[in-house]
Amino acid sequence: MLDKAASSYPIDKTNRVKRRHDRGFYDHATVHALLDAAALCHVSYVVDGQPYCTPTLFWREESRLYWHGSSASRMLRNQSEGEPACLTVTHLDSLVLARCGFNHSADYRSVMAFGRARLVEDPHEKERALVMMVDRFFPGRTAGLRQSSKQEIKATAVVVMDIERASAKIRAKGVADDDDDYALPVYAERLPVSTVIGAPEPCPRLLADVARPTTLSGYRGGRLLEEALAEAYAAAYG
Amino acid sequence: MLDKAASSYPIDKTNRVKRRHDRGFYDHATVHALLDAAALCHVSYVVDGQPYCTPTLFWREESRLYWHGSSASRMLRNQSEGEPACLTVTHLDSLVLARCGFNHSADYRSVMAFGRARLVEDPHEKERALVMMVDRFFPGRTAGLRQSSKQEIKATAVVVMDIERASAKIRAKGVADDDDDYALPVYAERLPVSTVIGAPEPCPRLLADVARPTTLSGYRGGRLLEEALAEAYAAAYG
Repeated sequence: MLDKAASSYPIDKTNRVKRRHDRGFYDHATVHALLDAAALCHVSYVVDGQPYCTPTLFWREESRLYWHGSSASRMLRNQSEGEPACLTVTHLDSLVLARCGFNHSADYRSVMAFGRARLVEDPHEKERALVMMVDRFFPGRTAGLRQSSKQEIKATAVVVMDIERASAKIRAKGVADDDDDYALPVYAERLPVSTVIGAPEPCPRLLADVARPTTLSGYRGGRLLEEALAEAYAAAYG
Repeated sequence: MLDKAASSYPIDKTNRVKRRHDRGFYDHATVHALLDAAALCHVSYVVDGQPYCTPTLFWREESRLYWHGSSASRMLRNQSEGEPACLTVTHLDSLVLARCGFNHSADYRSVMAFGRARLVEDPHEKERALVMMVDRFFPGRTAGLRQSSKQEIKATAVVVMDIERASAKIRAKGVADDDDDYALPVYAERLPVSTVIGAPEPCPRLLADVARPTTLSGYRGGRLLEEALAEAYAAAYG
């Protein structure tokens, strides 16, 4: 029997959603879908007791997360066990204007993933990661690029983290006032927010006969970025 | 003489932009403008050696940052000196497709701010913070709302952090390939990304004679969220 727990991340005090626990999800399907619809994450590390919150591009492969990690490479070198880290993705969906201050809020979908981050040092794992760092976003693209030089490969630090704990937190209800407050003559609204793609800007130095590959057609002006990213993810890993 | 250092954050090993240091800025004008154009940040704390990266709404008041801190309140209670934290804001402006894997990148504008986070416990500071938590985004709005109850005030944790160190990091150059690579028949582009406001959704339960206040007119469908936020900030604090 395949029970729900088998396709969920384990829960402990690290990742249990404490405040507004009704908004918490731990199943792979929810967590992974939110991760795969994003390019940007924020990663927290600790260096000498000081936390750092670093924005970076990332991607998922099964229950592993990969990201570009130059800023962390000095800390992670020779840490074969890895260093505790938390990678967070947030999709902001709205600002919510309520009838009292307390109920002002935002709609959002976020994931916090916990594990130990380490540098990818195995040459084969690194080679594969450098391909997927491009192809996860633009499937098949690496095959048509100028090949990476040894210096470039050496200069690129890739960090990997097996997800040990994760939680998703979702608020998606717009205005939610106290019952009595709906009788008040106060204006309230949900102000939707989304992240969209603009018109692609071809490099001005393109050679004359080089056209935009049809594999990029999902990235079109006006589309939600998260839709294009989820579609590319499915094409790259599906 | 008012020199540049007087209006910049001090630099040390915590906040110095090490990788791509040409992208680093420390002056108040650059750092504050990027903060004031955002609603969402990610905050890193350490609890028992485990870093947490938590998304939350925030705002700035001079060189102080405030945010909603229920998730951190247990850790911060009775920590009058505060706990080390890092608050980061990132505006993602594009994905960049280059002619080799190494030069794939993104345009972005980010700020990392370092300091010690503590709970706002003084009743007057907290009262003022709860007003600005709404009015910073929607100037003057609190005056027209149902007043906060004592229970609501008690239930809202506000965290404050004096910015001790900060840096901004900006990449804004689109495709930037190696000189030799421009001769290759490879398609390259800058794919712009922006976060925009959708059509406002009035609460379905509004009383019949309640109109949208003109003070909200900056938040209109199709506008860049960062523009509306910067404008509201200037109206609230200008």
